[in-house]
Amino acid sequence: MRKEESLNSAAIYHVPESVYSYPQDSNKLTVRIKTAKANCKKVVCRYKNIYEHTLRPYYKEMDLIATDEYCDYFETTISLAVRRFKYYFEIIDNEDLVWNFSSEGIAPSSEDYNEYFFYPFILDEEIPNSPKWAREGIIYQIFIDRFDNSDFSNDPPSISSWDSLPDSDSFFGGDFRGVINNLEYIASLGTTIIYLNPIFLSDTNHKYDTIDYYRIDPTFGTVSEAIELVRKAHEYGMRVILDAVFNHASNKNRIFSDVLEKGSKSEYFNWFCINGERIETSPPNYDSFAGLVPEMPRLNTSNTEVQNYLINVAVFWTQMLDIDGWRLDVADEVSHNLWKALRKRLREIKPDIFILGEVWNRATQWLNGDEFDGITNYKFRKYLVSFACDNCVSSIHFWNNVVSNEMNYKTSSLSFFANLISSHDVKRILTQMDGNKELVKLIFGVVMTYRGIPLLYYGDEIGLEGGDDPDNRRTMIWEEKSQDLDLKNFIVKLGKLRKLKKVFAYGTVNIIRNLPNRIIGFERTISKQNTLEQNIENVFILVNFDSESSNFNLKKSELSFENNKDELTSYFDGRTFKFNEDKHIDICLEGYDFIVLF
Amino acid sequence: MRKEESLNSAAIYHVPESVYSYPQDSNKLTVRIKTAKANCKKVVCRYKNIYEHTLRPYYKEMDLIATDEYCDYFETTISLAVRRFKYYFEIIDNEDLVWNFSSEGIAPSSEDYNEYFFYPFILDEEIPNSPKWAREGIIYQIFIDRFDNSDFSNDPPSISSWDSLPDSDSFFGGDFRGVINNLEYIASLGTTIIYLNPIFLSDTNHKYDTIDYYRIDPTFGTVSEAIELVRKAHEYGMRVILDAVFNHASNKNRIFSDVLEKGSKSEYFNWFCINGERIETSPPNYDSFAGLVPEMPRLNTSNTEVQNYLINVAVFWTQMLDIDGWRLDVADEVSHNLWKALRKRLREIKPDIFILGEVWNRATQWLNGDEFDGITNYKFRKYLVSFACDNCVSSIHFWNNVVSNEMNYKTSSLSFFANLISSHDVKRILTQMDGNKELVKLIFGVVMTYRGIPLLYYGDEIGLEGGDDPDNRRTMIWEEKSQDLDLKNFIVKLGKLRKLKKVFAYGTVNIIRNLPNRIIGFERTISKQNTLEQNIENVFILVNFDSESSNFNLKKSELSFENNKDELTSYFDGRTFKFNEDKHIDICLEGYDFIVLF
Repeated sequence: MRKEESLNSAAIYHVPESVYSYPQDSNKLTVRIKTAKANCKKVVCRYKNIYEHTLRPYYKEMDLIATDEYCDYFETTISLAVRRFKYYFEIIDNEDLVWNFSSEGIAPSSEDYNEYFFYPFILDEEIPNSPKWAREGIIYQIFIDRFDNSDFSNDPPSISSWDSLPDSDSFFGGDFRGVINNLEYIASLGTTIIYLNPIFLSDTNHKYDTIDYYRIDPTFGTVSEAIELVRKAHEYGMRVILDAVFNHASNKNRIFSDVLEKGSKSEYFNWFCINGERIETSPPNYDSFAGLVPEMPRLNTSNTEVQNYLINVAVFWTQMLDIDGWRLDVADEVSHNLWKALRKRLREIKPDIFILGEVWNRATQWLNGDEFDGITNYKFRKYLVSFACDNCVSSIHFWNNVVSNEMNYKTSSLSFFANLISSHDVKRILTQMDGNKELVKLIFGVVMTYRGIPLLYYGDEIGLEGGDDPDNRRTMIWEEKSQDLDLKNFIVKLGKLRKLKKVFAYGTVNIIRNLPNRIIGFERTISKQNTLEQNIENVFILVNFDSESSNFNLKKSELSFENNKDELTSYFDGRTFKFNEDKHIDICLEGYDFIVLF
Repeated sequence: MRKEESLNSAAIYHVPESVYSYPQDSNKLTVRIKTAKANCKKVVCRYKNIYEHTLRPYYKEMDLIATDEYCDYFETTISLAVRRFKYYFEIIDNEDLVWNFSSEGIAPSSEDYNEYFFYPFILDEEIPNSPKWAREGIIYQIFIDRFDNSDFSNDPPSISSWDSLPDSDSFFGGDFRGVINNLEYIASLGTTIIYLNPIFLSDTNHKYDTIDYYRIDPTFGTVSEAIELVRKAHEYGMRVILDAVFNHASNKNRIFSDVLEKGSKSEYFNWFCINGERIETSPPNYDSFAGLVPEMPRLNTSNTEVQNYLINVAVFWTQMLDIDGWRLDVADEVSHNLWKALRKRLREIKPDIFILGEVWNRATQWLNGDEFDGITNYKFRKYLVSFACDNCVSSIHFWNNVVSNEMNYKTSSLSFFANLISSHDVKRILTQMDGNKELVKLIFGVVMTYRGIPLLYYGDEIGLEGGDDPDNRRTMIWEEKSQDLDLKNFIVKLGKLRKLKKVFAYGTVNIIRNLPNRIIGFERTISKQNTLEQNIENVFILVNFDSESSNFNLKKSELSFENNKDELTSYFDGRTFKFNEDKHIDICLEGYDFIVLF
């Protein structure tokens, strides 16, 4: 008699879609299954062509790719000569009972089992097509008004002194020329992608309220200068992405003024969401950004006229400036139809365009391959900051949070997430760490070695401070004596490391568990099983977030370590660590130590 | 100290998308959560506007809407004046411990809990828009060649005798005139939607291999006759839907011939999936239906030219014939982009068009509102047949299967599923039941009172038999003496019942549990909580699939029974059942009994 209790059946989850079943190419399908934590010893995927009725299914053992507080996640990629897959799972529980799991549910394993999940056809448009250059890159984000004022002739009417602190209405005169003049500096940091906050006509310093989508803000410079900026960035081997603010416009945009003037007779009346026949302003009878900011009326992006208008804007500037991608503002409140049509059109004119959506919360539904390549990974930052700042948060808790979040996504998407360290919408990392520069370094260390595209917010690299908005938008410090050069050099070294090894852009993440509470450890691995690359690479990252030193050992058996090295060397200081006879390495990390071994 | 073991945390599942979170209208969001079976006493949804940071969230207790073998499913619909929702769940487990569950995971309940799932914005295009007439209807499916040959002048060259059994190449001469002449008959059955198998030019009897998408098959009749058929059906208050065979064409279609002739120089070369520069036929180097039928080359529906061509076909015939909907063949192997664009275009010309996808397996990804309204519910048929045929299958097992399947879908989608009793692709129900007509009646009884659109395959109503294809495509029997009029009358009565009460089209399903093994019981209910209708309706269906009679009682406390009736009457035979002092009804069902009480 089988003991049903040995398997937590209620916890087993798989659907043949979304992040649980997705193509890698026309003949390769990745499948994932969730089980209760430590409840299953092994999971096997049995698969064959949908229309194959006689031959036995193929066998593929699945990898335990992740574990969070309550669940395990197994994943593998199955291949067939055809694009039509059906499969079921064979689950071996802790008492060695074997279960079959298909769309018909869970049943004791039997020889004549004939139920399946179906992935009926891998369509061309489902094959991932995000650009390699993006996953291989490091982003440098620039809030132009605050970066460098190199051309005084285009300054706004009244600007604050460069050394003063910003308030929400301040202007400082930063401009395109300031970016162009500092391209060598940006490139020297190792960053390869410049992301500019909005550049189109607006009378605010942040320009997240566009007055004219077809005009570049004159206080930043001219169209020629924007073209020059992108061209010269390209000469440095850097890409440029712009901010698309398509959720809302400025109430000074002529599209809105026209409706204000003509009411429902305006050809743009249905471009906004107005409750009534004409616009009323107090109280406002139209939807706006967050439903709270009447100066930023929300565009009705479900309207195809609006979609076409905004797509034409994006196409126009992509071609005019020759930019390489777009960051989409408030991306989760805008019509999916706009994003789908936008991606399609942009890829027609630039097949390797990169599209990054601003989404703070779960973003799965925008990452089916036909909208965004990646999102702003605020969750990863949140967990990292919370771990770094609070001695009571254990590395296990940190990893549980990170893994739970990651398991909302296709593994292949995660390499395109922008792992931001700071941004114009959160505290600067140094301020967030209460000025503890050692912790800042560790955070940079983790982000620059982890999966995803590191994103540096201008100034973080030289120790710029800043609390919540608008303080996080202080002017850049250019005098070397006021810069934290030690921090900068550390970041430059990290950038070189990331370029040195493909594993940082392409490797999987294997969390090293059983480490002391304040130690984060992970492997980055390109293994034989990895479908994209041939060469095997292993790198180990160990980070001590405690001020005290820590001794522990790393067992070879717990690492997914495929070669026969008998020692590992620390990239930064050349320290070597030998595997002893018990096949483990004794590690001693100093307080706030960060080591990368390979 | 809290006992973590009381909650099966690994089993708790919710994502703020797909079937777990979906809009009902611009201000109403339905949310669902899965928990381990009988593991939670109560689940509450706490919700508010995303941008509301101070006020406490609203409170809404969730309904236990379904239970299968391992899980419970709770659901409710929450309302806000705005379209921006955030929410978390409060879960009360069996030991009265209270837990909060959000995108940040599961935590013991606390006063200052501030984590949420986000539904950032209800977009206009996400609001359900499937046509009322479809959910209120009953479908009658006609395989034209076999229905009635009323016009001998358009017969195919060589036809078989009407009384003979079909083989896969037989023709019998059935035509549009045969359908037109029998519209009164079809209407008299209570059916309100005629679904015609393919009608476009093809040299096979089934016509699932189109030679010309712009020509009606002349052996069925003329364009004028097709127009007449639809017009007259409309006069009878019936709708008409056609079969769209867009996955593949005939190899005799000129689009394919052109490629056969010109190879990669043909303008249609990319309309197919060809491995090479020209078509080879032995072995075939191009994809075809199922990858197995070279006579039916698969169209490359990811190609926008193909999409536009097929959409124009559908638009042309929708307008030319004034039809009301389409059934999409092999819908799960065709590009989603085609289906999305097709729905959009068709709804522009006919806002209440009905689109039914042929999908045999899990179809969730086509039912997001922008592709199909419903699917062919082969799963429901499978579970019902398996229960009816096998005395060892218990009603509990039946319901577990049905519920597991249903929980793949939005509750609101289920009313648009076509609950087919037979079709041209499965055995006829009488044959499937080994000739046991009593079981056939019970199956009709269940389908005609259950949620979803009943689908009758021509002839089933008069006891036509037929095994697997091609036997399931026998000619209709028109001589009354050879028809099973008792069965027909029963179905007519069921049709009248279904029309009598809105609850059949609009009510929820509440399964009545704790019944004997071979008894299926369910309530259909329109309650106060139902968002669509005001009037309360309750109907109870009890079906005995055993040949022996069965005595049991129905406790009022187990029914979701909102009025104060002290007796229920059986619709068919007027029997009354009184609630006794213990608030239960004593029920005696004869063998193969079917009663409907209200």
